[in-house]
Amino acid sequence: MSKKPEGGKSHKEERKEYTLNKLTGLGQEIIEDIEKNKVPSIKVPSRGTGNIIYDTAERYYVLGDRFGRRSLGNVKQIRKLGQMVYVGNFCKDLVAREKTATIREMYYVSEGWGISFKTQQESNIVGEDLEVTLGTTREELGLMPEEDGASVYGDLTLLDEGTEVNAAKMGKSGYTISPTIDQVDFLDHNVDKVLAVETMGMFHRLVQENAHKRFNCLIVGLKGQAARATRRFIKRVNHDLDLPVYICNDGDPWGFHIAQVIISGSAKLAHVNSQLATPDAKFIGVTASDIINYDLPTDKLKDVDVMRLKELSKDPRYKTDFWQTEIKKMLKIGKKAEQQSFSKYGLEYVVDEYFPAKFEEMENQA
Amino acid sequence: MSKKPEGGKSHKEERKEYTLNKLTGLGQEIIEDIEKNKVPSIKVPSRGTGNIIYDTAERYYVLGDRFGRRSLGNVKQIRKLGQMVYVGNFCKDLVAREKTATIREMYYVSEGWGISFKTQQESNIVGEDLEVTLGTTREELGLMPEEDGASVYGDLTLLDEGTEVNAAKMGKSGYTISPTIDQVDFLDHNVDKVLAVETMGMFHRLVQENAHKRFNCLIVGLKGQAARATRRFIKRVNHDLDLPVYICNDGDPWGFHIAQVIISGSAKLAHVNSQLATPDAKFIGVTASDIINYDLPTDKLKDVDVMRLKELSKDPRYKTDFWQTEIKKMLKIGKKAEQQSFSKYGLEYVVDEYFPAKFEEMENQA
Repeated sequence: MSKKPEGGKSHKEERKEYTLNKLTGLGQEIIEDIEKNKVPSIKVPSRGTGNIIYDTAERYYVLGDRFGRRSLGNVKQIRKLGQMVYVGNFCKDLVAREKTATIREMYYVSEGWGISFKTQQESNIVGEDLEVTLGTTREELGLMPEEDGASVYGDLTLLDEGTEVNAAKMGKSGYTISPTIDQVDFLDHNVDKVLAVETMGMFHRLVQENAHKRFNCLIVGLKGQAARATRRFIKRVNHDLDLPVYICNDGDPWGFHIAQVIISGSAKLAHVNSQLATPDAKFIGVTASDIINYDLPTDKLKDVDVMRLKELSKDPRYKTDFWQTEIKKMLKIGKKAEQQSFSKYGLEYVVDEYFPAKFEEMENQA
Repeated sequence: MSKKPEGGKSHKEERKEYTLNKLTGLGQEIIEDIEKNKVPSIKVPSRGTGNIIYDTAERYYVLGDRFGRRSLGNVKQIRKLGQMVYVGNFCKDLVAREKTATIREMYYVSEGWGISFKTQQESNIVGEDLEVTLGTTREELGLMPEEDGASVYGDLTLLDEGTEVNAAKMGKSGYTISPTIDQVDFLDHNVDKVLAVETMGMFHRLVQENAHKRFNCLIVGLKGQAARATRRFIKRVNHDLDLPVYICNDGDPWGFHIAQVIISGSAKLAHVNSQLATPDAKFIGVTASDIINYDLPTDKLKDVDVMRLKELSKDPRYKTDFWQTEIKKMLKIGKKAEQQSFSKYGLEYVVDEYFPAKFEEMENQA
């Protein structure tokens, strides 16, 4: 099975054109206002909590219809609008030259703009304003976070920076998802699913036990809370390559939520969840039921764990029977377990027994 | 210029044989004691502060001559000695089968041993005891930390897991140093130096500006405090490939010390510094002088920065004129600066101006 860029234009080229059009459009809107003798203003969708809605059809948070206007006719908004135009211009230059800058670098670059930001927080918010106004991601605007995303191991061939790479032939640590994952093309693959795990400890266990061959899967090492680039990668392999995604994390509220943010997105990023959320991804463990069924080594739930579990149980993303049952069960047993705790039964157990059982269970459900 | 494994045995095979001999030797020592009707005991070098010495000739911390004995004749030590033998046996199995386990996995595996550890801290210490007793690294014993090391970009060809990879042809994020870096062979390279930087933001800047081609260098993204695997990698490229190493971090006491630990090792790991420290590596910035000369955007030193700078000034690793001058200067100006602050002059400035000036300065000194 294989997917190649069609019609000559790569994913990267398509996105470049789309983003440049969006940025140019923003400038044109202002120019048109001036030509019509109107006071220039920009419509900015509201990101306040009142405008963040859980979309039950899409199964992730989205922004509602509310928006504000930034107008040059309002003294308080002149500086904000000026900043947006400067950042937009900076991003247009980045995208046109196929460059990126970290949000930290942009903050320093802005020292020369005369409308300088007081703190990086202020410049970050303007970056997010632009993201939500244009309906594009910050990464597509060329603005990058500091850190790379997850590690990927398995038979997936990508075109990154003009080089063909195969994630099963890059050394033990595999392919690193860079913040610019949207400039990467998927050329070919020979897997039928994706298995994402929370820790690099488990990632290396899976690689060592040849889990990628045994389960015919891509192995993704999330490194804790998944970076935006990781979430985008998972979305793309699920959506573009039709690969089912399974997530296995530590059996505690934090592991649950790392999975849930991949599945249903976060409220804070409601405006880009359509790019980041993978509603069909499945959390396969470690569940409270696993803790009991496999008699895993556990730690007692701390107060903060109990509090967090109770919060999750009220969250719309956890309204399914599966989550409600597992959260209640964990509260009842008062215990949590790490994904590496399967090594109680030997290092290979998790690959020889646990994952095969889980995959069988998933297939029976499907 | 190229270095290939000589005499048929790869670096990996040599280290495997060496480590297996060391582990077998430990067991034989005990057996010999028994055969001679002596109470078995093991000599364990002391890792107490009194036995950690800064070696001015080697230019890193080493352990002194003091040692203790773990004897089965001492009731208090029976458990400790038993644990060491179990861990040693576990490691021998790992090394023989060319497997690794995380220190977390070992902790869970030990549940089946009957001499179980009360906390992971306890099992970690036994791992370090074994490391110091055998004069080998924990990684060579097959015991791994959770996280991967730095990212490497540039024309270096390695043999990792039987696959030849080139760190300039692996996508934007390059080659990830895995905890098992000592099982990797350097096959070939076409660079004349190594440039290590603290942040992935700067790493991606350097890759984007083609710094690897312009300076004919490997680019290493340290990701903050360098992991043991990263330090081992830097040591090996410096020692095995004769490449000079330059480090550029944030201009603050924490950036200084990230460099210093790569250069001179840490006191805590005195017993393995001969494997990890690279005394010829050079810190090239950001210095207090750079902050003044380049008029960089700065932040005020916090109390904790001032305290840390004063500590460093008394540390034997900072006794050189260079460090004493720079620490005093930073305390005097009361300011610190990040490496990304050069973007005040545009994103390319750091590669167009700063690094060329620094490399010229280094060559004039040499």
